[in-house]
Amino acid sequence: MSASESEGQKAFICGCLVECLPEEFSRWLNHPDVDLVEWRMDDFWARGLTMAEMKFFLGALSAKPRLPVIATNRPAREMGAFAGSEELRLGMLEEAARSGADWIDLEHDVSADWIARFRQAGAKVLVSWHNPAETPSGEVLRAKLESMRKTGADALKIVTMAKSAVDSLRVVELIPVAGEEYGIDLIAFCMGPAGKWSRLVSIFLGSPWAYARFEGQPAGAPGQFTVPEMRALARSFGRH
Amino acid sequence: MSASESEGQKAFICGCLVECLPEEFSRWLNHPDVDLVEWRMDDFWARGLTMAEMKFFLGALSAKPRLPVIATNRPAREMGAFAGSEELRLGMLEEAARSGADWIDLEHDVSADWIARFRQAGAKVLVSWHNPAETPSGEVLRAKLESMRKTGADALKIVTMAKSAVDSLRVVELIPVAGEEYGIDLIAFCMGPAGKWSRLVSIFLGSPWAYARFEGQPAGAPGQFTVPEMRALARSFGRH
Repeated sequence: MSASESEGQKAFICGCLVECLPEEFSRWLNHPDVDLVEWRMDDFWARGLTMAEMKFFLGALSAKPRLPVIATNRPAREMGAFAGSEELRLGMLEEAARSGADWIDLEHDVSADWIARFRQAGAKVLVSWHNPAETPSGEVLRAKLESMRKTGADALKIVTMAKSAVDSLRVVELIPVAGEEYGIDLIAFCMGPAGKWSRLVSIFLGSPWAYARFEGQPAGAPGQFTVPEMRALARSFGRH
Repeated sequence: MSASESEGQKAFICGCLVECLPEEFSRWLNHPDVDLVEWRMDDFWARGLTMAEMKFFLGALSAKPRLPVIATNRPAREMGAFAGSEELRLGMLEEAARSGADWIDLEHDVSADWIARFRQAGAKVLVSWHNPAETPSGEVLRAKLESMRKTGADALKIVTMAKSAVDSLRVVELIPVAGEEYGIDLIAFCMGPAGKWSRLVSIFLGSPWAYARFEGQPAGAPGQFTVPEMRALARSFGRH
């Protein structure tokens, strides 16, 4: 969907799930207010996920009908909660792909061999990069976008910390660049108070979805809206 | 105020006044929910403003205390409602300046001699350009900004019709350019459904104020928010 066609259309909102009981998982994966669910496996891991529970979650993931699911297992180096070995981290993601996760979020610094592996397991791959400290210059951002595109990912995600509104502007400007120059979907916005508007504007500029916190889930990334907040804001600007 | 300092600060909202009875004018000029008032003299003119009423309005304008006032007398060629002679149009603005209007909105295609005249009468001058049909390329917009800056205005305003979100992006990108390269305040946003978000984002990028429709006043430009809507949206993104 191009930015020029997007007005008046639906805002795709991805709810971030950071904890739940195994028996609640299917209900979250059918939440009526979102269009996708991000399963933050790293948060589940940090809360003491057992192997038995993992099996249960994977079973629920393979059951249909449910919303599309993005499996994310973010390591500490990229602001995530996973602190185990890289083999275990990627292995968990591969299990999620085998159990039907629609997307795997793969950090930019992992070997691109994993893209092929996750695809073989049946998932699309979102290559992501997070800079929790700052927003680099436009040149650095462009170079990063270019190198991430070369991985052959199905979609890309760039998230930085905004210290000013102009930082956020530099990041959302990448979205039409990715679409027009590279023909790839890019999710790009800024964290922090100065980046709040970019979380919303990103979907108007062509990002395929925006992340929001489920009500009843612990607080997410700095500046993140709840699902109803995001939906109401999108509606204010003409998306339903 | 630079964009980097702006978060958490107040959103300056200018309420657009397009009609009122003479005896109501002072009340509008002290409206508690806005920070400035735009007096759309062209709309008053189109509704049959008499000379006697004009005198009354100018008297109320010179009375203090009141909010800062921008006097605008937009001609039809720039999407306004004024259809009389150019002499009368500019003469009305000069009367407003003499009666204490803080700002005069002067269209880009009027001789810059008028800037000096309005200044002598005590007002600051906002040089404005409206394109109701489309949003030109970035190069054309930059050239327009450059030529408008050369008038020596106190602030500038660029408003175009957005056919896509990317059109809006191109316009709001001018705001930090004006601030950083030229050291001048720029109000820049897009009309139309695809431009709604730019009306809000403009104030985060450094525009000194945003225009909104007073509740109880006739519908304004396409995509314009009401004052309470604009205030609530600004608050959602961290401005109070």
